[in-house]
Amino acid sequence: MTVSPAPETAQPFRFPVAARYAGMESSPLKDIFSLAAREDVTSFAGGIPDPALFALEDVRACYDWVLTHRGHRALQYGVSEGEPELREQAARRLSREVATDASQIRVTSGSQEGLFVVAQALLEPGDVVLVESPTYLAAVQAFSVHGARMVGVETDDDGVVPGALEEAIRTHHPRMVYLIPTFQNPTGRTMPVARREAVAEVLRRTGVPLVEDDPYGALSFTGSTWAPIAALPGMGERTILLNSMSKLMSPGVRIGWMRAEGPVLDTLAVAKAAISMQSSVVDQLTVARYLETADLEGHIARVSAVYRERRDAMARAIAPVLPAGAHVTHPDGGMFLWAALGEGYDAQDMLAEAVEAGVAYLPGWSFFAERPDRSTMRLSFVTHSPAVIEEAIGRLGAVIARHG
Amino acid sequence: MTVSPAPETAQPFRFPVAARYAGMESSPLKDIFSLAAREDVTSFAGGIPDPALFALEDVRACYDWVLTHRGHRALQYGVSEGEPELREQAARRLSREVATDASQIRVTSGSQEGLFVVAQALLEPGDVVLVESPTYLAAVQAFSVHGARMVGVETDDDGVVPGALEEAIRTHHPRMVYLIPTFQNPTGRTMPVARREAVAEVLRRTGVPLVEDDPYGALSFTGSTWAPIAALPGMGERTILLNSMSKLMSPGVRIGWMRAEGPVLDTLAVAKAAISMQSSVVDQLTVARYLETADLEGHIARVSAVYRERRDAMARAIAPVLPAGAHVTHPDGGMFLWAALGEGYDAQDMLAEAVEAGVAYLPGWSFFAERPDRSTMRLSFVTHSPAVIEEAIGRLGAVIARHG
Repeated sequence: MTVSPAPETAQPFRFPVAARYAGMESSPLKDIFSLAAREDVTSFAGGIPDPALFALEDVRACYDWVLTHRGHRALQYGVSEGEPELREQAARRLSREVATDASQIRVTSGSQEGLFVVAQALLEPGDVVLVESPTYLAAVQAFSVHGARMVGVETDDDGVVPGALEEAIRTHHPRMVYLIPTFQNPTGRTMPVARREAVAEVLRRTGVPLVEDDPYGALSFTGSTWAPIAALPGMGERTILLNSMSKLMSPGVRIGWMRAEGPVLDTLAVAKAAISMQSSVVDQLTVARYLETADLEGHIARVSAVYRERRDAMARAIAPVLPAGAHVTHPDGGMFLWAALGEGYDAQDMLAEAVEAGVAYLPGWSFFAERPDRSTMRLSFVTHSPAVIEEAIGRLGAVIARHG
Repeated sequence: MTVSPAPETAQPFRFPVAARYAGMESSPLKDIFSLAAREDVTSFAGGIPDPALFALEDVRACYDWVLTHRGHRALQYGVSEGEPELREQAARRLSREVATDASQIRVTSGSQEGLFVVAQALLEPGDVVLVESPTYLAAVQAFSVHGARMVGVETDDDGVVPGALEEAIRTHHPRMVYLIPTFQNPTGRTMPVARREAVAEVLRRTGVPLVEDDPYGALSFTGSTWAPIAALPGMGERTILLNSMSKLMSPGVRIGWMRAEGPVLDTLAVAKAAISMQSSVVDQLTVARYLETADLEGHIARVSAVYRERRDAMARAIAPVLPAGAHVTHPDGGMFLWAALGEGYDAQDMLAEAVEAGVAYLPGWSFFAERPDRSTMRLSFVTHSPAVIEEAIGRLGAVIARHG
């Protein structure tokens, strides 16, 4: 049978796209980076470190050392689990709070890949993932494209509410719970120890696994630090704990890791191999060298001191421009401050006007799995100096004053 | 209602694993890397470049230049599409054969991530993907974990058979066709121009998109090169063409790219953002610098000359040890030679004995989507010197002689 040829130039060929990406011509985080790139805009939208704070000379020295002394290995294939030196260093860091062997580490190309690897390894279409309300939107995306349904759990100033968590578990039979207990994204809130224990007790009792995301925990403004929930009794084996070097050393280097126990470690490695075979060996060996030789604690202390000043500047500047009844968080670390303007305000609607006035933030609605509070916005305080922050928040205040 | 607590230490917690990874405690390519790592084994299993051939000084100079002159950018977040300099260089290289604008490039962390991004963007569970029989097993894995079903299409010495391709399209209504037309993995075969034209004609007429994988095309032993199928009339818009720097510069750096046209470019960027946000900016800028300043063509010519000698050594050594009726390919480029021992042989069964004798290969059955020829094996000729190749193939010959 001969089929008559279709007219080849009649209309452009259109690739069929999987339903999971249908209508998603863009992604929330991609848009942040575009907004942030406009030169006339002071952007508080992305969690973008101030490049002036990078330990550039240390990092350069580590790349140079690796290419001089480990050059052939650095350019060769590695293994999906991650390079041994980096896994040793990751285990050493983690062991300050939760005993960890290098065999329990899986290296990823940043935490985003870590979240995606977890989703690939664990999630079936239709699975429910319980998340904080609000939660980190790119995690939601990594889970959503696997066909999972996010259910938001009530939070208060101490994080997720244990009773609400337990009720949601009984109602929805979730595949897993995803939490960012320390200096949370987007709110900047931290879960106190007693709350962590209560949450762990619920998870142990109900048998639901935890995916614990901890990219900011080291960036403390008070000297206090919080051990991960994974460190609590019985929680190590039921938690996948994610760390990243993006906020501590460099986001451009794209190196993070996960800690897990038991057979799931094999599945995580196979999923990683299917996704990207392995992470850049040059970058892995460089980060390992950096962790081994650089004064990371000193670097973190310097960066945190600067971030604290900037949080203070933003807190000072924003208080007088918020309407009556508004609520704003006062984070003890991390990168983000979260403002709820209250009834009558829509932060998404205000954004174009704000950008016009030369200031950008991230509308908060996108951080909610359900029932978004559209009056909310996330403001990163880490990128700009106190003077720039105060000036730009002033301009934001003028926009707020025209609304509501 | 109070639920009685489960005994917390009765048995270890077991993470529920998604069905797509159930029973996959390992992956075929992970096992290659383990085998290859044994010091007493001459491994022909992986496509592992000889590290002595790396342009280590050039690469080191490029990292140094990037960290000296673009340091703050290199350590900062980039964009999911890839860094502009690298996209420019990729477009320039591709444009020698198919007119390409930088806007049509999407950077990936090696070709494996490229294949996974394509699968994320295009595949629905139950979709059929037509592949060469045999084909690249890690591509099959990236497609399989998306619930796609691989259907192998008949090949001959010129690659996929157009009539068989057309029949398979009419029978299976595939979502896409995946081909490696030049120095194919695993067979080393190359599709001649006339065959490319016949395949393109089938794809244009039936409207099925092509995913064209071209990691080896530049590694020619004859001076001849083959433009990708994407370069044929009407094919650019219906092809996603994947390139990698892994075989030309370094696999450890994990940088590759895809070329596509039209709206699917947006979907590919969103999928990339969900998977890993972006590739290492340091590595991207370094590869861009390398492409801009290093003598890549000279490097490829030197590497190809060495690989040609090694192919010759392997071809010479293997001919006398193959049983009567066996078939072996004679690749004009790339990394792999493919041997079918013929009836009565099972290359998987022989492997343990071969490793015992100090030589490893990859059993061919895993490269077949269906109806594997278990007498086949893939032998990479690029890693070892001619003397080592000849000696190890001799040992393999002794193992073969004991079978069949």
